[in-house]
Amino acid sequence: MDMTEIQHALNASEQGSAMYRMIEELYPICRSITGNGVRQTLHGIQQYIPVEVHEVPSGTQVFDWRVPLEWNIRDAYIAAQDGTRVVDFRRCNLHVMSYSVPIKSRMSLKDLQAHLHTLPDRPEWIPYRTSYYKDNWGFCLSHNQLKQLPDTDYEVYIDSSLESGHLTYGECFLPGESAEEVLISTHICHPSLCNDNLSGIAVSAFLCRALQNMQHKLSYRFLFIPGTIGSITWLAMNQEHTNWIRHGLVLTGVGDAGAITYKRSRRGEAKVDLVTTHVLQYSNEPYKIIDFFPYGYDERQYCSPGFNLPVGCLMRTPHGEYSEYHTSADDLEFVRSGSLHNTLSLCLKILFVLENDRIPISLNPYCEPQLGKRGLYRAVAGQKEGALQEMALLWVMNLADGRHSLLDIANKARMPFDVVHTAAKALSDHGLLN
Amino acid sequence: MDMTEIQHALNASEQGSAMYRMIEELYPICRSITGNGVRQTLHGIQQYIPVEVHEVPSGTQVFDWRVPLEWNIRDAYIAAQDGTRVVDFRRCNLHVMSYSVPIKSRMSLKDLQAHLHTLPDRPEWIPYRTSYYKDNWGFCLSHNQLKQLPDTDYEVYIDSSLESGHLTYGECFLPGESAEEVLISTHICHPSLCNDNLSGIAVSAFLCRALQNMQHKLSYRFLFIPGTIGSITWLAMNQEHTNWIRHGLVLTGVGDAGAITYKRSRRGEAKVDLVTTHVLQYSNEPYKIIDFFPYGYDERQYCSPGFNLPVGCLMRTPHGEYSEYHTSADDLEFVRSGSLHNTLSLCLKILFVLENDRIPISLNPYCEPQLGKRGLYRAVAGQKEGALQEMALLWVMNLADGRHSLLDIANKARMPFDVVHTAAKALSDHGLLN
Amino acid sequence: MDMTEIQHALNASEQGSAMYRMIEELYPICRSITGNGVRQTLHGIQQYIPVEVHEVPSGTQVFDWRVPLEWNIRDAYIAAQDGTRVVDFRRCNLHVMSYSVPIKSRMSLKDLQAHLHTLPDRPEWIPYRTSYYKDNWGFCLSHNQLKQLPDTDYEVYIDSSLESGHLTYGECFLPGESAEEVLISTHICHPSLCNDNLSGIAVSAFLCRALQNMQHKLSYRFLFIPGTIGSITWLAMNQEHTNWIRHGLVLTGVGDAGAITYKRSRRGEAKVDLVTTHVLQYSNEPYKIIDFFPYGYDERQYCSPGFNLPVGCLMRTPHGEYSEYHTSADDLEFVRSGSLHNTLSLCLKILFVLENDRIPISLNPYCEPQLGKRGLYRAVAGQKEGALQEMALLWVMNLADGRHSLLDIANKARMPFDVVHTAAKALSDHGLLN
Repeated sequence: MDMTEIQHALNASEQGSAMYRMIEELYPICRSITGNGVRQTLHGIQQYIPVEVHEVPSGTQVFDWRVPLEWNIRDAYIAAQDGTRVVDFRRCNLHVMSYSVPIKSRMSLKDLQAHLHTLPDRPEWIPYRTSYYKDNWGFCLSHNQLKQLPDTDYEVYIDSSLESGHLTYGECFLPGESAEEVLISTHICHPSLCNDNLSGIAVSAFLCRALQNMQHKLSYRFLFIPGTIGSITWLAMNQEHTNWIRHGLVLTGVGDAGAITYKRSRRGEAKVDLVTTHVLQYSNEPYKIIDFFPYGYDERQYCSPGFNLPVGCLMRTPHGEYSEYHTSADDLEFVRSGSLHNTLSLCLKILFVLENDRIPISLNPYCEPQLGKRGLYRAVAGQKEGALQEMALLWVMNLADGRHSLLDIANKARMPFDVVHTAAKALSDHGLLN
Repeated sequence: MDMTEIQHALNASEQGSAMYRMIEELYPICRSITGNGVRQTLHGIQQYIPVEVHEVPSGTQVFDWRVPLEWNIRDAYIAAQDGTRVVDFRRCNLHVMSYSVPIKSRMSLKDLQAHLHTLPDRPEWIPYRTSYYKDNWGFCLSHNQLKQLPDTDYEVYIDSSLESGHLTYGECFLPGESAEEVLISTHICHPSLCNDNLSGIAVSAFLCRALQNMQHKLSYRFLFIPGTIGSITWLAMNQEHTNWIRHGLVLTGVGDAGAITYKRSRRGEAKVDLVTTHVLQYSNEPYKIIDFFPYGYDERQYCSPGFNLPVGCLMRTPHGEYSEYHTSADDLEFVRSGSLHNTLSLCLKILFVLENDRIPISLNPYCEPQLGKRGLYRAVAGQKEGALQEMALLWVMNLADGRHSLLDIANKARMPFDVVHTAAKALSDHGLLN
Repeated sequence: MDMTEIQHALNASEQGSAMYRMIEELYPICRSITGNGVRQTLHGIQQYIPVEVHEVPSGTQVFDWRVPLEWNIRDAYIAAQDGTRVVDFRRCNLHVMSYSVPIKSRMSLKDLQAHLHTLPDRPEWIPYRTSYYKDNWGFCLSHNQLKQLPDTDYEVYIDSSLESGHLTYGECFLPGESAEEVLISTHICHPSLCNDNLSGIAVSAFLCRALQNMQHKLSYRFLFIPGTIGSITWLAMNQEHTNWIRHGLVLTGVGDAGAITYKRSRRGEAKVDLVTTHVLQYSNEPYKIIDFFPYGYDERQYCSPGFNLPVGCLMRTPHGEYSEYHTSADDLEFVRSGSLHNTLSLCLKILFVLENDRIPISLNPYCEPQLGKRGLYRAVAGQKEGALQEMALLWVMNLADGRHSLLDIANKARMPFDVVHTAAKALSDHGLLN
């Protein structure tokens, strides 16, 4: 993998727009942690990359959890006495609380209230609610809608099923020269929400597609899984194999207009943490780096103490810090092709460092080598051209003592990794470095 | 020891007022590093807690020092030619420099001057002076008094004795389940001064009394000793035993209106340092934490390099940083029952952490446990209630890897210790933690 | 070495003026990395200190380099058609690019241009240029001069020789009680430039002269060498011996009016780094401390990874950060006797700490010693005189546990080294310290 390939990958087509179109395609599907919505989504992803689909039976014990019953929904509504659907699943799949048990009943507005969820502060938006692990049912609607409901009886209907079936997830493995692998994990369990997490799905798929066209030393494993139960299931079924995971990123909420946020792995100074920090420092864009905390996305499982994998989480605005989060306002307006493209670019730069970092050893440790006789140095001292490149050569030679990686050298020299990497290559070509 | 017991201890009676009354009782006594004033003081303390009184003979070698002769004083004055006492020990025991040798003489004001101590900057206050280790005598008086003395001859009389006797100190040991002990040390050698250190005596005694009514794992040793020579004597006589001291606090100057100051132990990061820092951070009150320095109170001896005990010093305004320090203005007006109560409360909270901190080990280290099925988790995701308590559960499970104590977890989670402690208890009760 | 000797050394004569006069003497000589200019310079230094002159034959392999041909120059000019010298080496030796090959030619101004160096931004100054390792020739002149040259043909003449000869350097070794040595290295290859580096030569020589009159434990090695190739040559010929170098300073650009800049050794926390930092902190003058970077002066070679010697670099304004750098404006006006004196003083204070630092061991580790009975303590407690000296005594006793040097103690106590050193001496004299 070299920078040319990466530039090529980014320019090959209008990647940002293409990712946005992928989001448009997947937006209408009603996803949950199990069920046909997940299958349709994985099928959609397969149009881009070769994802292998796995089905894990309901009831399977996965550590402290069990794979739940499979949930599917065909229709749901609240209807007025004249049959008019005042809340209609077919208009927006957020209207039904995910994992709602089936119901067909007539009840007063007052009795119905306990099952209605709204956002009084955002009266035009529909909230997103779930009840995976407790039998319940509910409708989500805008607060304005609720206020307009006459105080009368309603027909309540949810045509869902909660039956023994499967948990479905997708996996795409790209073998590299080495068995050491990079994990890219994305959750696919949210219904019609764009940033959370169709943005993650799209960037993940396009990252995978870019890698397919490049040589890479490391192996790459892309997971498209339902949140929490999906990563727990995968970890339970691949516990031994996790030893091969050397670096990892959870991608989530990467399409909004906000600045990048990187949440460190639990280790705090894992390679992926150092690399991402470095890349962000030289990204010329605002960013925020935050410490690990045991809440958020599937990094919670990858970073549980028994695994403690070096997996960070790449986001833009963190969940809960934007008001559109988990509401109908996280829609196609909310995500931007520019943000998607920028996130993809950042990911590729991170992988570039992971692929190319190494610990160089000087073959000329005593005093500086004479760079001039090798054409690596300015001929007339006192002139300023080429000074930066020369400094990179000097830094690499000075720190190539077996105790500094190229990334360490870049950080000490306060230079971007690729300048140091290029210098190291030139020095190796001239026999000065291993 | 639990928080309920601590609340009970603090509310049981009006502890602040009670400590203030104790100070009032002890205020009139003329204390020094030896003598009957110390004995009377210990007798006064015995009205509150079961203090054992120790007598160490004058001349006893204690490391580089010797227990000095015992000093007692009955009367002292400077009298005008007509016999009027112009400076009178009976009016204020600060008037005589502590350890003044006896004298009965007539001399001019000029000759007397070398033995008079005043505070020109604070002309209404009487300074406190001592000369323990060099034979000398002196009077302390207000500068205003000095200025009014006519330039004539005076009768000078000090009816003191400096004779072979004893050094007296008090000790109260509360055995706990473990032989590991907490040292609470307070000096008792200052005459009519309230903050320094009747405040320390009162808080120490009431802390001891509170512990008597609680279960505690650790053992507690309270020392009421003359400054410097007292701690040196105790250390010399208990050198081997000091290995059992796991934590310690010197209490001094804890009754004034100033903010709390904690002076770290010489180790700097001893458990007592970390715990006190944490408790102060969540105290909602101003405070200052300062590094150890080899001046101050008996921590100088406990933290001498041969012992290097984990003993910090808890004060309010540090000695020398308030102008009333070591003057007659450190009187009953200067100390406040609120400050005393607040210090006692702080000490109890520190002991609560010392008693309850432990290194938890997760019994479910692979992925998160399913808190929901145990009733430890919100049923409907997306609602905000209970989020803080849940975060504490998640933090404990995530960091219970055998390398973090509950205090470490609280600090990482930026939560008060008792929230984390409560979470750990709930997790242990559900079999998720050892 | 004690502070009295150092004060004596600094006051003995007007050291600043004397160093300035030495610079005046050496200023006219045309130095380069080899040749008679270097020999004349070393001869000039020998008027002050006993420098041993070494000659290393051209072609000698020194690590990755070879000692170059020896360069000498007798005359050079650019002459107008009427024979008038419009650029004349005899007027200023900066006019010829160092290591210019001989030439005698007639050419148009246009052809000549490629060999002319000016500073358009500083039109009155002549730049300093070199081309040691590539056959080339050139003239340096002020931009104003260039602009006035009529567009006609010129006679170009450089009477130089580039022949097999020697690289010349000087060395002065002052043996101490110990074979452990301090390296002081200064480059001597610049022609008529004052700050860079006649200032370094003068301070180095006077430092050497001061040490000759003092007792010192450490041995001192002063090197007067051509930059880069000189240090590489010395290191190649003394590779094994470098193990004795315990501390080192490169002195360069120490005569200008700017604040002191100390560039740390590559190790970053070598003793010389800690000592210089401490001395600067108590210097009452502005200063800057910067991290090592692999550019600058001969510290580049001493701090190459194979050697990694504890050698820092002491400067005033760093090279390249003042516009006079490497131009004719770095002249006798630019350096100041006050700056030279101040640098010398700083060096002596650094050496004082290097000579006198040690790890004291308390012979009275349990509790404080009784300072009073040894006359080391104020008799009447509460008085303020002597408090600072007492604090130093207490700090030394408290930290003399075999894990703190006197410098560590001074830093912890926030006191200058010599106060702590004096306290340690008093304690040793009283048998309290080894």
